[in-house]
Amino acid sequence: MSTDFAGTLLGDTIAAVVPRDAAAERNARERLDRMTKPPGSLGVLEDVAAQLAGIAGSCPAPLPAPATVGVFAGDHGVHAQGVTPWPQEVTRQMVANILAGGAVVNAFAAELGAEVVVVDVGVAATLDPAPGLYDRKVRRGTADLADGPAMTVEEARQAVESGIEIATRMATAAGCLVTGDMGIANTTPSAALVCAFTGATPAAATGRGTGVDDATLARKVEAVARAVSRVPARPATPAAALAVLAELGGLEHAALAGFVLGAAAARVPVLLDGAIAGSAALVAAALCPAALDYALAGHASAEPGHALALEFLDLRPLLGLDLRLGEGTGALLALPLVASAARALRDVATFDSAGVTEKG
Amino acid sequence: MSTDFAGTLLGDTIAAVVPRDAAAERNARERLDRMTKPPGSLGVLEDVAAQLAGIAGSCPAPLPAPATVGVFAGDHGVHAQGVTPWPQEVTRQMVANILAGGAVVNAFAAELGAEVVVVDVGVAATLDPAPGLYDRKVRRGTADLADGPAMTVEEARQAVESGIEIATRMATAAGCLVTGDMGIANTTPSAALVCAFTGATPAAATGRGTGVDDATLARKVEAVARAVSRVPARPATPAAALAVLAELGGLEHAALAGFVLGAAAARVPVLLDGAIAGSAALVAAALCPAALDYALAGHASAEPGHALALEFLDLRPLLGLDLRLGEGTGALLALPLVASAARALRDVATFDSAGVTEKG
Repeated sequence: MSTDFAGTLLGDTIAAVVPRDAAAERNARERLDRMTKPPGSLGVLEDVAAQLAGIAGSCPAPLPAPATVGVFAGDHGVHAQGVTPWPQEVTRQMVANILAGGAVVNAFAAELGAEVVVVDVGVAATLDPAPGLYDRKVRRGTADLADGPAMTVEEARQAVESGIEIATRMATAAGCLVTGDMGIANTTPSAALVCAFTGATPAAATGRGTGVDDATLARKVEAVARAVSRVPARPATPAAALAVLAELGGLEHAALAGFVLGAAAARVPVLLDGAIAGSAALVAAALCPAALDYALAGHASAEPGHALALEFLDLRPLLGLDLRLGEGTGALLALPLVASAARALRDVATFDSAGVTEKG
Repeated sequence: MSTDFAGTLLGDTIAAVVPRDAAAERNARERLDRMTKPPGSLGVLEDVAAQLAGIAGSCPAPLPAPATVGVFAGDHGVHAQGVTPWPQEVTRQMVANILAGGAVVNAFAAELGAEVVVVDVGVAATLDPAPGLYDRKVRRGTADLADGPAMTVEEARQAVESGIEIATRMATAAGCLVTGDMGIANTTPSAALVCAFTGATPAAATGRGTGVDDATLARKVEAVARAVSRVPARPATPAAALAVLAELGGLEHAALAGFVLGAAAARVPVLLDGAIAGSAALVAAALCPAALDYALAGHASAEPGHALALEFLDLRPLLGLDLRLGEGTGALLALPLVASAARALRDVATFDSAGVTEKG
């Protein structure tokens, strides 16, 4: 399939992705059954531990540390349709807040021992250079997806490749990548992507985002419906998937799809945040299905399209806390669960080694 | 109500428990609404942050660190009824495993920065002294609750007071207490306590614990039914609650009830693990309803009685990972969520301070 993008970073990255190591995963399952605990008693974390072993190709897997959150930021032409009560300038202001350490993602990262970087792939303003800010701006916000293509296919590819490049760079030092996003109105392109890639209706996939009233929600559904009507449902090839991304997506969605691909090519686990990451993961899966082998869903967002995306991708969210913030906050909160699963697989004694009698 | 136990540590502790500070909790809610995030977007963690402020009586609340897990260990006469496939000696063996650092609770505690202590309140064996082990043995295992009282009322009170004493001791240095337990067959007394304190039927409250087959489950339900038939449903006074605890409980359940009371009296948050802690919290609530103001439910156990206990106590579990291990593992995994909520309340910038525009 990578021949769709031969000779590009995107094509090379897709070609580099291999499925998880089944032997390492089996070894992890066997070790989990010999550990001093009732078989299966770690529930979902046994799946996580096995997945980490499969990702690393070794059992036990290395701890998923340190972790780096990539917060991809962009603006959205569809803001003009009145799909959110927040002014567009809040994207720029919140990027500044994150870079100053004042946002929720910073508090969570400080508590949980992760690094935060911000990647400007499409903020509709000129940002001053700052430590922790990567300037990968493709354009100053997308065009209005309700009226026409959000971006060109070339711009979409460029944003995807920025995500790949950042993931590749981070993966040299990080044991786990975490997706983050900032972009006022970005649940609207997410809903459109969910419709296109899963076949869901705009009414089912579109939610209240950071809190919109009934009239705003109706405008949002209408904008999504107009956009989705222009694209084929369930694009069947990577090239078609990139075209749908260009038509409907945000620049941060495109970059996050690349971030997932880059993590997979580097064989590093990637923890997905909520609605924005879920829709980006749909794009990544359409570009390269095996890339999702490396993804874990951090939490279940309150946004309805997110549940549709996770169901389609067969990902079970680790947390359900009714978060609807973005920035990477829900994925970060799942990081200690993933790290604890890895630590248990590595450190817990077996029945034999600890002299504990197994059940009769 | 504390006059039931006048002149005892239990009575003094109950008398010392005050409800959470409503003003601090209101201040936290107001601050959460001014923080640079959409109102309510931290979901359940906003409730946690406000609860922590109410517990501490200040906004922001101190971080819930360091954390100490108290693993209360005991054996159970009902083991003779064939309610579990695990030999009783595994309690002693697993206590040794925990003290040697080889159990899952140790791996999670190491990953999450918590200390583990083990409190022997009723292991049916003589344990060698070890660092991290507190000898508070009340008796060598309970009597068989299917046939008669598991312990005397005086023994129950002694175990409760051991839990209070340990909580009080830990709370001098710890910012958060975490409940843990170890005791082969201890989901059987938990199910009996859930029946007595919530009015649930033995069939509804009794589950497969660490993994039992149909025949074993039937014996377990029968043992619970015989025990529960001897006690009044929903004991109406603290003295009656203690009598029910003596009739049905395990020594670790009694001590955990005291651990919750001691945390509340010390105004320190206490994170509850699963089925054992949930049934102990029912006892604590019957002894002193306000004590539950200081409790958070770490996770939803796979054991059915746990959901009944949490519903009765109106506690929402922070995690749902299908864990059924005990030791404090589920509560420990919730610790970073609680700490992150506290960190956000303390550190996140407000709209004013960060120069971020609020929504229109």
